[in-house]
Amino acid sequence: MSAPNRATLWGRVLADELAAGGLEAVCIAPGSRSTPLTVAFAEHPELEVYSHLDERSAAYFALGRARRTGEPTALVCTSGTAAANFHPGVIEANQARVPLLVLTADRPPELRDSGANQTIDQVELYGDAVCWYAELPEPEADERKVRSLRTTAARALSESLGVEPGPVHLNCPFKKPLEPLEVPDAVPDSFAETLAGRGRDGAFVETDRGRRTLEAAGDGLRSLTDALENAKRPLIVAGPADPRNLRELEPDAVVDLAERVGAPVLADPLSGLRFGSHVRARGDSIRVYGGYDTYIDALEDPDVVLRFGASPTSKPLRHALRDADARQFVVDPAGAWREATFTATDLLAATAASVVDGVREALDSASSAGTATEDGWLAQFEAAERKHWDVHEAARIDDALEADPLEGAVLASVFEGAPDPATVFVSNSMPIRDADRFGRPRAAELTVLANRGASGIDGIESTALGAGSATDADEPLVLVTGDLAFYHDSNGLLAVDRCDVDATIVLLDNDGGGIFHKLPIEEFDPPFTGQFKTPHGIDFESLGETYGLEFERVEPREFDDAYRRSLKREGTQVLSLEFDAERSHRRREELAARVADAVDGTRSD
Amino acid sequence: MSAPNRATLWGRVLADELAAGGLEAVCIAPGSRSTPLTVAFAEHPELEVYSHLDERSAAYFALGRARRTGEPTALVCTSGTAAANFHPGVIEANQARVPLLVLTADRPPELRDSGANQTIDQVELYGDAVCWYAELPEPEADERKVRSLRTTAARALSESLGVEPGPVHLNCPFKKPLEPLEVPDAVPDSFAETLAGRGRDGAFVETDRGRRTLEAAGDGLRSLTDALENAKRPLIVAGPADPRNLRELEPDAVVDLAERVGAPVLADPLSGLRFGSHVRARGDSIRVYGGYDTYIDALEDPDVVLRFGASPTSKPLRHALRDADARQFVVDPAGAWREATFTATDLLAATAASVVDGVREALDSASSAGTATEDGWLAQFEAAERKHWDVHEAARIDDALEADPLEGAVLASVFEGAPDPATVFVSNSMPIRDADRFGRPRAAELTVLANRGASGIDGIESTALGAGSATDADEPLVLVTGDLAFYHDSNGLLAVDRCDVDATIVLLDNDGGGIFHKLPIEEFDPPFTGQFKTPHGIDFESLGETYGLEFERVEPREFDDAYRRSLKREGTQVLSLEFDAERSHRRREELAARVADAVDGTRSD
Repeated sequence: MSAPNRATLWGRVLADELAAGGLEAVCIAPGSRSTPLTVAFAEHPELEVYSHLDERSAAYFALGRARRTGEPTALVCTSGTAAANFHPGVIEANQARVPLLVLTADRPPELRDSGANQTIDQVELYGDAVCWYAELPEPEADERKVRSLRTTAARALSESLGVEPGPVHLNCPFKKPLEPLEVPDAVPDSFAETLAGRGRDGAFVETDRGRRTLEAAGDGLRSLTDALENAKRPLIVAGPADPRNLRELEPDAVVDLAERVGAPVLADPLSGLRFGSHVRARGDSIRVYGGYDTYIDALEDPDVVLRFGASPTSKPLRHALRDADARQFVVDPAGAWREATFTATDLLAATAASVVDGVREALDSASSAGTATEDGWLAQFEAAERKHWDVHEAARIDDALEADPLEGAVLASVFEGAPDPATVFVSNSMPIRDADRFGRPRAAELTVLANRGASGIDGIESTALGAGSATDADEPLVLVTGDLAFYHDSNGLLAVDRCDVDATIVLLDNDGGGIFHKLPIEEFDPPFTGQFKTPHGIDFESLGETYGLEFERVEPREFDDAYRRSLKREGTQVLSLEFDAERSHRRREELAARVADAVDGTRSD
Repeated sequence: MSAPNRATLWGRVLADELAAGGLEAVCIAPGSRSTPLTVAFAEHPELEVYSHLDERSAAYFALGRARRTGEPTALVCTSGTAAANFHPGVIEANQARVPLLVLTADRPPELRDSGANQTIDQVELYGDAVCWYAELPEPEADERKVRSLRTTAARALSESLGVEPGPVHLNCPFKKPLEPLEVPDAVPDSFAETLAGRGRDGAFVETDRGRRTLEAAGDGLRSLTDALENAKRPLIVAGPADPRNLRELEPDAVVDLAERVGAPVLADPLSGLRFGSHVRARGDSIRVYGGYDTYIDALEDPDVVLRFGASPTSKPLRHALRDADARQFVVDPAGAWREATFTATDLLAATAASVVDGVREALDSASSAGTATEDGWLAQFEAAERKHWDVHEAARIDDALEADPLEGAVLASVFEGAPDPATVFVSNSMPIRDADRFGRPRAAELTVLANRGASGIDGIESTALGAGSATDADEPLVLVTGDLAFYHDSNGLLAVDRCDVDATIVLLDNDGGGIFHKLPIEEFDPPFTGQFKTPHGIDFESLGETYGLEFERVEPREFDDAYRRSLKREGTQVLSLEFDAERSHRRREELAARVADAVDGTRSD
């Protein structure tokens, strides 16, 4: 490792060590102070570099990529407010446990609070929203300093993939020259021969990431096994999964466990369990449930609940769990008690995979045969689930005929018509709720993602495109978004061209915040329309044109065809569907009532 | 003050107290958790409410408004990443000393870190970038709590206008119901009759804001007076002014002081001194200098410098001051030493106005008549200043003839052709530098603003439109921006329609980051083009259409006409001019060399 000056040396060592440690991709926003980092990353042969002009979008793109891969993506920006633009994406990464490595260039420490240009206080800029923060020393061709730099780089990757993965922030002060200009004697030739200068073979520092997850063992596992074996009404709830969970949990193992203890598996669309080959029915039995949002209220309470992942998207499900008099085991490898109704009773600080395997092993060696499950416990779920989909399918057909199309039916079509495999990114607010209720479990490898950490409507396009940047060329990317989210991160659409990602974008345009029709504020107008629903009349067709997208206005009844065509086409298409938010809200209520009626009918049979 | 429930009571008391304390405007982004604040602000008869769909743009709009008025603007958002989107604007407000009142709605404390939806850690979210932070207690109809709420509201306004004005953050937890729904017994009827409930006449709490500024007095003032009286080569440098400085400093007083001590006044375009009636020449003498960027290097060093405001935009000026062997007095009412070359010798912690008046009074009573100024000291500035404008005027004319138009000449035209009065907002990066060099001092009331706190290229449209929202209908708003900045905050253009602000937007489109041609990285390609210059090919015409703007491609030689037409027209026009960044950079260098030659010629005469 030789370098014409100290800043360049610093950049090269960082890029070298991070690449050796497994970093694959970097999102870079242009800037001057970050030149040593940008140049080193851009010239590194093993790193994929994505250039972004808006740091907020860059952070979400990196987040999306890391969300899809489970591996950290790096971010680089210059000093000043550029770094603060990363903040929303950093918070989402923290809450969603997505590994990120944020490298903010800074001016030398003496320029802080001195009135110097483009100099802010970047020390611990993201507060508690990062797993680890380090302030790099100023570049110097000093052996200990460079060894420390290599160690810090390796550690940063490791910290981002710790027990609770998430973002790591390295603040990197540089002084001029920032470019690879020759500075005599700044880096002696002999430095390249030192251990610090040349690094070891491969990574200078190796950290064993494998050990940074907790395996289930001991009392907790025994309690859970006992409880499940003796449960009369056991239930497995799989909430939104973080990237590690998504990668490590074997759906077949979960389904196997569920069958052995007689528990239905309620699979959030973001759990990694709603779609996949494990869903395929064996005979008549349903293996994964997706319609619970409309019927969970009407069924008997469970007595033992096993929960993976974060809090479920479905509010009726969260409330049913809150109100059940049940023993509830929350499994969380980070030991966080992510259950905001505070009714869960047991916490297992272990990976979901190790808990599932642990219970299955314990059941193998247990003497008891069969389960204690009450007659009818599974049957009521099966009946309700069938009613849910019958009612929803009927509504889709009726509504097409009646020319009173159903907003949620678009989500049904998105999942039903998605190729196998595909990545489907769903925006927050109404799309994720409709995905939960209309996304029918299916034996196809659909990776369904959303920003469900902080559940914002910011950064949606960028996160989706970042996820798309990580998939094989033959795996399509579908994004479903509302109009407010589409507006909020419209800058992110520049990545279609600059980062060469194609997508089918389904734009559910109801001209404002449809979700507010669900809330009591609907009754207070003003300020409902002006301050909450906020119709805006943005011309999304010309917005699409701004970023070179193909824009198509689609009637709901033509959606399936348009969707199929887009999935086969190169380039990025926006399929825009207009809905009336208020009408959509009433329709959702009607449908839920129809399912409830049907389930009541079943139960009184 | 009565209310149907506690959350509504809280919102109403806050709105009431803030309006009584002088708050005039609130920028609100839609969201559910913030409902009590939104409803109360929207229904308050004395508050102007602006609705924004992107919180990042909202913060900059609020900043722009407060920058123009010098009075705090409030910001409201819901819980989650929404609040983090305010962060860049909050940092700029902090560094530029612009008063803001940031109200972030939050969920109740027990939901933090519990896995609850849309709940992040908002406590001290902006770190050191705020003047004051307070966590409001949860709403309750308790007399002490409500009195504390009123006091906190009054104090928040006062803190934002303290010795060092800036943003204040109140985090506001609310639980349901958030809407003005009747909750029996939540707020007893009798509460309205308590002191807490009804408030006092006018504001409940009065704080004397006047006392929160420091007046010059004593030794510092005497030293400065002595130094100026005895200076051989005195110089006054007015850097970018914060809003209070802009309001309080009397340009005529500065010019008077300068004439009495024989000092030229170098006026940054953001100093509040480059434009205005005080500029009008008395006889032959130049009263305010604006061309120093090209000639300051060539002149003799000052021996005494009096500096107001922040660090000057001009790098040659900053370097000249750094290299001068001079006694330098930095005047800063917040006592901050905003001089990042660390060569200033004296700090006067007082307002610029009080220092100017203090020295003038001291001179009145001094026995000495005349100044100690060297012969030729003023003359060399006068000659150089004339040469600067001669060369620049000649270039504008030549270049129009030669059809090789000059990017900086657009800035010359912008200031020359701006109506009197007008507000001109200039983006960072190249526009502000060209404004510095091409903006000729003029006897017209031009309020020239920029985000020169952290000097980012984010939030530009929003800040400009926010400033425009505060001016009289007959005072035009002009925004000069480059293409990257225009892209970065394109969401902010929605305020043209939603907040009803008209502007003439001058878009200097050189397809990427022209400023990087100024830097040595230009020689390293790759990565220069891909990672620094970043040409993007965004179709700004369709972007304009998205937000209902009139878009006109203008040839540089037609600019003056198009500009005049736009200034007379209703609505918002984008006048887009294309330039080649590299060529523009070379032209700037050529012009600077021509001035330097001319100045050399003068001096050797």
